[in-house]
Amino acid sequence: MEKQIVGEKAAQFVKDGMVIGLGTGSTVFYTIQKLGLLVKQGLSIKGIPTSFQTERLAKENGIPLANFHEIEQIDIAIDGADEVNPELDLIKGGGGALLREKIIARAARTFIVVADTSKMVDRLGTFQLPVEVIPFGYEMTEKHIRSLGSDLHIRIVNGQAFKTDNGNYIFDCNFPNITNPKQLEQDLNMIPGVVENGLFVGMADIVITLDIEKNIVIKKSKQSV
Amino acid sequence: MEKQIVGEKAAQFVKDGMVIGLGTGSTVFYTIQKLGLLVKQGLSIKGIPTSFQTERLAKENGIPLANFHEIEQIDIAIDGADEVNPELDLIKGGGGALLREKIIARAARTFIVVADTSKMVDRLGTFQLPVEVIPFGYEMTEKHIRSLGSDLHIRIVNGQAFKTDNGNYIFDCNFPNITNPKQLEQDLNMIPGVVENGLFVGMADIVITLDIEKNIVIKKSKQSV
Repeated sequence: MEKQIVGEKAAQFVKDGMVIGLGTGSTVFYTIQKLGLLVKQGLSIKGIPTSFQTERLAKENGIPLANFHEIEQIDIAIDGADEVNPELDLIKGGGGALLREKIIARAARTFIVVADTSKMVDRLGTFQLPVEVIPFGYEMTEKHIRSLGSDLHIRIVNGQAFKTDNGNYIFDCNFPNITNPKQLEQDLNMIPGVVENGLFVGMADIVITLDIEKNIVIKKSKQSV
Repeated sequence: MEKQIVGEKAAQFVKDGMVIGLGTGSTVFYTIQKLGLLVKQGLSIKGIPTSFQTERLAKENGIPLANFHEIEQIDIAIDGADEVNPELDLIKGGGGALLREKIIARAARTFIVVADTSKMVDRLGTFQLPVEVIPFGYEMTEKHIRSLGSDLHIRIVNGQAFKTDNGNYIFDCNFPNITNPKQLEQDLNMIPGVVENGLFVGMADIVITLDIEKNIVIKKSKQSV
């Protein structure tokens, strides 16, 4: 119910003629459904999906899709998050689509996050940080990540190492108390073999969530105010 | 001839029982040939190749190969470079294997570079910097790299976009005058969609090259002295 409220709210930011980055997950699911309704009522948009799963969902909801080479820019990207701190830094990637989500969030003029109250935290790190790594030499990459102070395991789905849409592995990393997300994001990305990690620092412009009385709250980041 | 001299010289650093990272290219070709000879004479080593091409070459030369999960560490990695500056920072990746080369160089206790005199430069950047990018959204990644001040083109081989051993594209980027390689390496790696780039900063421990009289010179980096 919370997910539906915040997910649908995000659709209000979408205007006629926009190119919209479509995130992946159980909250943005409701944004996509709502956008599908608005398209049926005449809204003209083009969607860029962050995953095969979202591509299918957008098609089912009648949202026209575009390829990167057909568009000049992404106006708004809308996506969920696994954790959001008071500075609006995020952990994402529980669903395994973090790289595509980050490419699209970075490309968008405005990045809107939809998050129910359970995702709002004082400090990032209770949720395990997903890190996408190249299969080649992943044993070495694992050692380098451990040297940053994390315990970790390779993500297993149906008894096999999970592969992302890009053919890579995910390490779920236990950094229990992330005091400097920006530094950690950088340290991880400088390890050869790390393709990307689930820290989204300084990227979210707007976070739509609920307060304790379950009213909708729209938080804006410092840079976007 | 220069390539053969410096390539073979590197083999002298290899001791019995070592695990050796085997680079890719026309100079390290001679290192691998020489190591093959030494193996026939009784040297016991295991090689970790950086490319399918080197894997084949090592097998042809009778060098036993190992997988990452069989080894504890890499003792020495030996590889070529496209440019080497006086601080022993490198541009690599002309051959397209930069990611695997960087993973192995980073994992090695000692990283030895073999480079004929034509590779020694005062400042990096005459050689175009290779950047490995995920195919998804590469048009966006291209825009971000251009915003760092580079002209670039996607690498084409036999009329098609070249794909690395990891299934990614290579952008050859024209940064004509790289004054701060460390910063550029970081800026590139923080772009979502960039997997890795060909700047190897502070990684080389030893560079084997020739002076103007064609004598062998062994340069050591500050951190390894």
